[in-house]
Amino acid sequence: MPRYKLTIEYDGRPFVGWQRQANGPSVQAVIERAVKAFCGDEVTIGGAGRTDTGVHATGQVAHVDLTRDWPAETVMGALNFHCLPDPVAIMACEKMHEGFDARFSAIRRAYRYRIINRVPPVTFERGLVWHVKPDLDAEAMHAAAQVFVGHHDFTTFRHSRCQAKSPEKTLEVFTVRREGHEVIAECASRSFLHNQVRSMVGTLRLVGEGRWTADDVRAALAARDRKACGPVAPPDGLYLTRVDYRPAEVDTAARAAWLSGGGSAGPGDQAGAEDDDGEGSGD
Amino acid sequence: MPRYKLTIEYDGRPFVGWQRQANGPSVQAVIERAVKAFCGDEVTIGGAGRTDTGVHATGQVAHVDLTRDWPAETVMGALNFHCLPDPVAIMACEKMHEGFDARFSAIRRAYRYRIINRVPPVTFERGLVWHVKPDLDAEAMHAAAQVFVGHHDFTTFRHSRCQAKSPEKTLEVFTVRREGHEVIAECASRSFLHNQVRSMVGTLRLVGEGRWTADDVRAALAARDRKACGPVAPPDGLYLTRVDYRPAEVDTAARAAWLSGGGSAGPGDQAGAEDDDGEGSGD
Repeated sequence: MPRYKLTIEYDGRPFVGWQRQANGPSVQAVIERAVKAFCGDEVTIGGAGRTDTGVHATGQVAHVDLTRDWPAETVMGALNFHCLPDPVAIMACEKMHEGFDARFSAIRRAYRYRIINRVPPVTFERGLVWHVKPDLDAEAMHAAAQVFVGHHDFTTFRHSRCQAKSPEKTLEVFTVRREGHEVIAECASRSFLHNQVRSMVGTLRLVGEGRWTADDVRAALAARDRKACGPVAPPDGLYLTRVDYRPAEVDTAARAAWLSGGGSAGPGDQAGAEDDDGEGSGD
Repeated sequence: MPRYKLTIEYDGRPFVGWQRQANGPSVQAVIERAVKAFCGDEVTIGGAGRTDTGVHATGQVAHVDLTRDWPAETVMGALNFHCLPDPVAIMACEKMHEGFDARFSAIRRAYRYRIINRVPPVTFERGLVWHVKPDLDAEAMHAAAQVFVGHHDFTTFRHSRCQAKSPEKTLEVFTVRREGHEVIAECASRSFLHNQVRSMVGTLRLVGEGRWTADDVRAALAARDRKACGPVAPPDGLYLTRVDYRPAEVDTAARAAWLSGGGSAGPGDQAGAEDDDGEGSGD
């Protein structure tokens, strides 16, 4: 069965999140229904990151196995047609080797968080940004964000119901910049804990308002205590923007080893203990 | 009675347009209701441009006279509060001299037109952009847009029900550029004919697709015939972005002359016959 990699953009406002759930519409269900409408296949698709209710994506990735060997362009066009009128778009579709797994092959997830920083209400982008009225010092936020970069125990910045085995993660990059009325935070890591990005951004907001210093952020991180976290930022401003993958040959070998029982936590695990959940849920 | 200048941003999707009408909600009515809720004054406000149904603004300007001499900041905060939940925001509020008129004192209107140029459907910005699938050559569109710059008879590019006395206008600038998947057209003029921007952009789209040349645009303009116009672009992508004003002393003198019967077409008229409608409706 040919495997396809889908790069997906979606407006998270009408959804309970990426993952199929009984209590409301999900992005996963929209795409699975589109696959069925297109070719009759009843599939379950896996995404690279499980975005929460109201969280958006410009570069979510999923894979799907289809019975027939369709041209990738045909699959993309058909799924885009059948996803309508839901605000879900397949931005790219590629045929992949069988070792490719959208979740376990991923080596990096990137998120963007958008803050509209002005006094007047938001007009065009309600539900697509976090509206913060007090003037934010984006440079101070950027400086404090560097506290998070590197390998840390992120217990303070993880949802109390986060299911990852370890609270340790390695944040590769975290930038904050201002563009006019907008303050944009971007970060990347192999994977994230549940609510990690929103927890970090909510804390950096305190720095932007001058209520916390970078040292306060450092102390919160060192506390390894959920109660030390600032107010968590809302889902509205969060976007999964990119998922990166390792080369095909590594994938196939890792998957073969995993299938033959050579690993216990899945083929996403090779890079080390800090990523043992392999989950990539950053919202 | 103190006069205030309001700079207004609005999402045009839920509105029949700027102007109060019997057949649906308008931006003007939202602001007039907000004024009444704030201070009890029953006012009629005038806007610099009469945007059509579904057209947006980031820099519409209106003036309003209030009974009491409120601080401008108080007016802005109160109107923003009372405009909610409608997607209308007062971005700035200034106290003005009595000669200031949002419509007649304006010397320049600027519009932006946003095209999302990609095959996949639009997700986040439905109703906020024009979705054009075929690859557009933005450089060719920019070159052809220069045909419109200068003083011309824009009969071809004006709505058949346009009420301006003259079809002649002087376009100051017209640029088209690409930013990733987006093609952005921007133009400025003292005033525009009804549907002029959307007519010009719809025609430039034909150039972007390679179906028309700049010479075809030149011939369409020279034809002075509405039937020579390309398909008019939808309102979705159009934004009134800025209105510029002349200095206060000129304003006051022009208004005084007009009130004393020195002019027949209103104080907006001094710059010449090409702007005799003084209307500034560019959508």
